[in-house]
Amino acid sequence: MIRAKHRQAAGLMREHGIDTWLIEFARETGLRPDPLGYLIGGSVTWPSAFLLNHDGSTAAIVGSGDAGTFEATGLWTELRAFRNGPREDLLDILRRWDPRRLGVTWSESDDTADGITHGMYRLLEKLLAGTKFADRLVPAGELAGDVRGIKLPEEVAAIDNAVKLTEQLLDRIEHHFRPGITELEVQHEVHRWVREAGWRFSWDEEFCPMVNFGQPAFLGHAGPTDRALEPGDVIHVDVGLIVDGFASDLQRTWYWRRPGEGTPPADVSRTFDAVKAALDAGVAAIRRGVEGFEVDGASRSTVEEWDYPEPGFAFGHGCGRVAHDGAGLLAPEWERYGDQPRFTIKEGNVFAVEMDLEVPGYGGVIGLEEEGVVTSAGAKYRPKPPRELKVLGSPRGPSAA
Amino acid sequence: MIRAKHRQAAGLMREHGIDTWLIEFARETGLRPDPLGYLIGGSVTWPSAFLLNHDGSTAAIVGSGDAGTFEATGLWTELRAFRNGPREDLLDILRRWDPRRLGVTWSESDDTADGITHGMYRLLEKLLAGTKFADRLVPAGELAGDVRGIKLPEEVAAIDNAVKLTEQLLDRIEHHFRPGITELEVQHEVHRWVREAGWRFSWDEEFCPMVNFGQPAFLGHAGPTDRALEPGDVIHVDVGLIVDGFASDLQRTWYWRRPGEGTPPADVSRTFDAVKAALDAGVAAIRRGVEGFEVDGASRSTVEEWDYPEPGFAFGHGCGRVAHDGAGLLAPEWERYGDQPRFTIKEGNVFAVEMDLEVPGYGGVIGLEEEGVVTSAGAKYRPKPPRELKVLGSPRGPSAA
Repeated sequence: MIRAKHRQAAGLMREHGIDTWLIEFARETGLRPDPLGYLIGGSVTWPSAFLLNHDGSTAAIVGSGDAGTFEATGLWTELRAFRNGPREDLLDILRRWDPRRLGVTWSESDDTADGITHGMYRLLEKLLAGTKFADRLVPAGELAGDVRGIKLPEEVAAIDNAVKLTEQLLDRIEHHFRPGITELEVQHEVHRWVREAGWRFSWDEEFCPMVNFGQPAFLGHAGPTDRALEPGDVIHVDVGLIVDGFASDLQRTWYWRRPGEGTPPADVSRTFDAVKAALDAGVAAIRRGVEGFEVDGASRSTVEEWDYPEPGFAFGHGCGRVAHDGAGLLAPEWERYGDQPRFTIKEGNVFAVEMDLEVPGYGGVIGLEEEGVVTSAGAKYRPKPPRELKVLGSPRGPSAA
Repeated sequence: MIRAKHRQAAGLMREHGIDTWLIEFARETGLRPDPLGYLIGGSVTWPSAFLLNHDGSTAAIVGSGDAGTFEATGLWTELRAFRNGPREDLLDILRRWDPRRLGVTWSESDDTADGITHGMYRLLEKLLAGTKFADRLVPAGELAGDVRGIKLPEEVAAIDNAVKLTEQLLDRIEHHFRPGITELEVQHEVHRWVREAGWRFSWDEEFCPMVNFGQPAFLGHAGPTDRALEPGDVIHVDVGLIVDGFASDLQRTWYWRRPGEGTPPADVSRTFDAVKAALDAGVAAIRRGVEGFEVDGASRSTVEEWDYPEPGFAFGHGCGRVAHDGAGLLAPEWERYGDQPRFTIKEGNVFAVEMDLEVPGYGGVIGLEEEGVVTSAGAKYRPKPPRELKVLGSPRGPSAA
């Protein structure tokens, strides 16, 4: 997989105007993983450089104590091990490849493409000082974004697998609900299941799954509480799994009916329909060549048409090795998103698309979140979101059992 | 503990010439933890700023979805939650505090003080552009190093506890050795014990513990293999545990005697004595006010006196929240260590000190590693290293059992 990503990256370098890409220049990545680590094949202790040339050649410059790790991967055409430091080997390789534009991985707004720390950037400038390469550094954040964001078929298949298992997990969660169970009890049970299966969660376990019965304390990253499920509650779950190195991110909502109640309250049903409509409108707008904010706008204006308050979050984010996989956002052009909303959608992008709305005057959040894969014919839902709000609980009231 | 570290940091700011410290300016720290995260109390999704003023006031500026997390900590005098972005709130607080020198956390050579990514640094410059603060940014890497490196008594106690449990683990490992067991079998068993105890390892499990019977494939970060223990082997283990958030890093060596053999071969014993002498010489040189490279030199010259090849690694590194805890090195002035060897040792520093030498012409590595706490009276070993090479196996050969 790493070799295939190197090949893909070499093929993308020309259009990004980069001759040699310094994929990673980092140290102690075992303690602080670099988002580019997925192209490296191991962690390093001392200041180490990993380079890809436009012709597909690769070079790794690492401390002698780390050399064994990288020798074993067989990924690096040239492997240099230093005792004193990387400078001489780095200059030697650069002189040979002689790039006019040497890409360094950083980005102001795409965190998964913001690889190099500021200290390491200063160190790089110092190592190159007095050589012709000092003035040839260019940002490689957009290249890094494309390499991460344009998924290979095997990456899409791995995400599909994580999504499929997460759907099964959601089914299991659905069967676990009963009046009186608390949000935290559901979460703890899910933690147990996932640990037994040997999977990991897509984000911090304290917030994964998020489980909400009725109105949450606040919107956003709120963990479950000891609130117990009651008839009449809107039930909202947000959960993601990382399986074989690829992540899912899904949301589902249910309604637990009151004794004798046939259908959910009208506002609950209407909010579900508004969520579904906004989700569909956004996904319909996803096409190659469209910019991220346009997709968000299509969804956002649907929310407005349905007369709900403007959502305080982005419609979609990349999903891949992690749930927030960077490489562009389907988001409004707000300061906090930087340039990310102005990226151009490409075939092979995979997004998590979501819509959450509060039920007005009732309490509770209705949320749906799916993955969407961009194909030549637009985005395909993975999986298809439910078309109806699922109602739980017996229409004749809870059984005595 | 975080509050105590904030107080300590505020007290150190004057001597570092910093009026306000932007401890962390980061996003998506749940995915990519910042080494300064231990002063923050939670992870953030959107570009967020955490500030400490010289008078001890603190401020956190986070996205609205993360606000609940930080409200719950009660750590931040002022908590601002944004929808659009952090700029206005950041400028508002800076105008009020009006620092002449605004410290930003980065370092060319201390990875645990190299907090801000290059992309976030550029974003910070952009947010401050056109204000008087644009020209007031100064590096806060040395301040960050002191805050991390000068351990409070409760931090030293936590390291002591991790060290004590690691010693007990090493005892248990010692009793597990027998001819025929492989390096990997020992490692897997230790993984099981540590998982059951609910601890974590100080570094990547693939290399922790490192277990070597006889000559390793190469020196450095080499994982265990399926090599089986044989009589006559030098046994070397390097292991560290993280318990309650604090790390240990210890090495021990044993010799498994051949049938009928009384004492180890002379070269094995002599190498142990050389390791012990070099370790003691280095630790004796640790004192407040001494620079790191001087300590390394004392140990390195002892190795030379004993006529062994020069070690290819540093004598000591900070040990604390992680095994390689930054904040200065007891290292030679090699390029790869940057400025770290030229830091001044302070009371409260905790180092892992180590010496490994190959047994000449025999095969095998003898290594000892301990923690050392700097007090007003010099460094104190935690624990005291063994004074004799421990010999395992019956002097009359293995029993039939």
